[in-house]
Amino acid sequence: MSAPMNVALVGIGKIAIDQHVPAIAASADWTLAATCSRHGTVDGVAAYDDFDRLLAERADISVVSLCLPPVPRFDYAAAALRAGRHVMLEKPPGATLAEVHALQHLAEAQGLTLFATWHSRMAHAVAPARAWLQDKRVTRAHITWREDVRKWHPGQDWVFEPGGMGVFDPGINALSILTEILPEPVHLTGAELEFPDNRATPIGAQLRFSGNVSADFDWRQEGPQTWDIEVETDAGHLALRMGGNVLEIDGKAAAGENTIMGEYPALYARMADLVRTGQSDVDLAPMVHVADAMTLGRRMTVAPFDF
Amino acid sequence: MSAPMNVALVGIGKIAIDQHVPAIAASADWTLAATCSRHGTVDGVAAYDDFDRLLAERADISVVSLCLPPVPRFDYAAAALRAGRHVMLEKPPGATLAEVHALQHLAEAQGLTLFATWHSRMAHAVAPARAWLQDKRVTRAHITWREDVRKWHPGQDWVFEPGGMGVFDPGINALSILTEILPEPVHLTGAELEFPDNRATPIGAQLRFSGNVSADFDWRQEGPQTWDIEVETDAGHLALRMGGNVLEIDGKAAAGENTIMGEYPALYARMADLVRTGQSDVDLAPMVHVADAMTLGRRMTVAPFDF
Repeated sequence: MSAPMNVALVGIGKIAIDQHVPAIAASADWTLAATCSRHGTVDGVAAYDDFDRLLAERADISVVSLCLPPVPRFDYAAAALRAGRHVMLEKPPGATLAEVHALQHLAEAQGLTLFATWHSRMAHAVAPARAWLQDKRVTRAHITWREDVRKWHPGQDWVFEPGGMGVFDPGINALSILTEILPEPVHLTGAELEFPDNRATPIGAQLRFSGNVSADFDWRQEGPQTWDIEVETDAGHLALRMGGNVLEIDGKAAAGENTIMGEYPALYARMADLVRTGQSDVDLAPMVHVADAMTLGRRMTVAPFDF
Repeated sequence: MSAPMNVALVGIGKIAIDQHVPAIAASADWTLAATCSRHGTVDGVAAYDDFDRLLAERADISVVSLCLPPVPRFDYAAAALRAGRHVMLEKPPGATLAEVHALQHLAEAQGLTLFATWHSRMAHAVAPARAWLQDKRVTRAHITWREDVRKWHPGQDWVFEPGGMGVFDPGINALSILTEILPEPVHLTGAELEFPDNRATPIGAQLRFSGNVSADFDWRQEGPQTWDIEVETDAGHLALRMGGNVLEIDGKAAAGENTIMGEYPALYARMADLVRTGQSDVDLAPMVHVADAMTLGRRMTVAPFDF
């Protein structure tokens, strides 16, 4: 066992408190050495509200994990890399593709680790689904990803501002799984995007891809939530349910070699491994599909949305 | 001098007739051996309307040059590569980034040349501008790209359909020059996109990039047309006018080492070189900026537009 590494967590909001803090606390790889946030803090952990000061004062912190919304995240990531720190990015890794390319070049030039995380890829049944599909021919696939934005982002107007991604904020989780499990890549061929009359990002999206693959994203679903991916192949039918956590083959629950670790503990374990082996992991495929949908999709105006 | 290579031109519209056909005719590298189009033909050249039949019957044609609009282009490009032909793509190289990535993988797997052309990069003054900027620090840059869509795309409704790109169809030419001449890459930080009330793509766009770089694209300019890029540096002011064809340094015309060849002859010369040396050239940076603008940009609705 190597000694634990000091990590600073930037952006102490819901996702940091719900996921990052417990994952770090439960890991022997990591010590939460500082936080940086305008308002949020973590009990017993040194709290900064000035990131430059944190970087200047805390040479003992070698890794920075960024949980801010995508638009402000770039400046923090670039500052951390320039200050010689390894960086871990919440999903999506940026507000634009070009800024992530810039971070990749910076990390490479500095010899630092950059990890663009996709937490849904760490869901229990994703690796077994990928393994099962690897030698099969996919004839059809469909994603149904329907949740209630009021439940998951209560009052977070930024998700409906430019760069907030709208329904692609959850939808990119589905796309991160799809791009992980399909044996051949697909590309978008058409989309309809539903923009609420009073908002700058879509609340619903229907996507069509090559290879008979499609997706239905909706952020207006009350009651039970749906995070399903169904894949037809030449050798049977696979379903991933509960956001990648439950696997069914031909309608029967499949045990597979399900990973035991939760999504965020698995991300932090992977980050520890990347830092120790001097590697980066930046796969932009899910974000490319979103950019393609925003470029090629047809915009429709739907009813105004208010929290 | 090597023997000329047979090329087939697919999509015989305005750009093919105005630019591709004369460039091929004037080159010792190329013979226009066939065309494929629903309606257009070229006098004295074998005309097909079925691309699969062309590929099946004409083993003598080693290169396919695609001038179709971006949306239908992928299927032709993929079919040509699968049939073992080198492929040259008009700009933009596709309707989505993911489909161009797929073509790259296909070309690589087949050991074939794929050339995503950016004709404006071949304008006379682009190479001298790049050379002049190489060792300077850019403090500000601004693109003004204002033209009349009625003049350049008369009645072409597809430019306002999803995938037609709207004002980014000319704007991507400016971005192809910008990404070629700047010594350091930039990334989009914000944009406003003006969508006519009756159209699915923008007719105007204002873009802001990192590093104090900005762009003003407009497709409603009547009278004189403007295709200017101004760059302030720590060592003087550069202006590229007339779509990259005229260079000024500190307000004075600069001769530079201007290339003599026209844009399309230069593209075909480069394609001949790529095929003979077994290389590909696919730089997606201009297209990434457009996808980023469509993702991050704020949409405004403006007056309806009709041709």
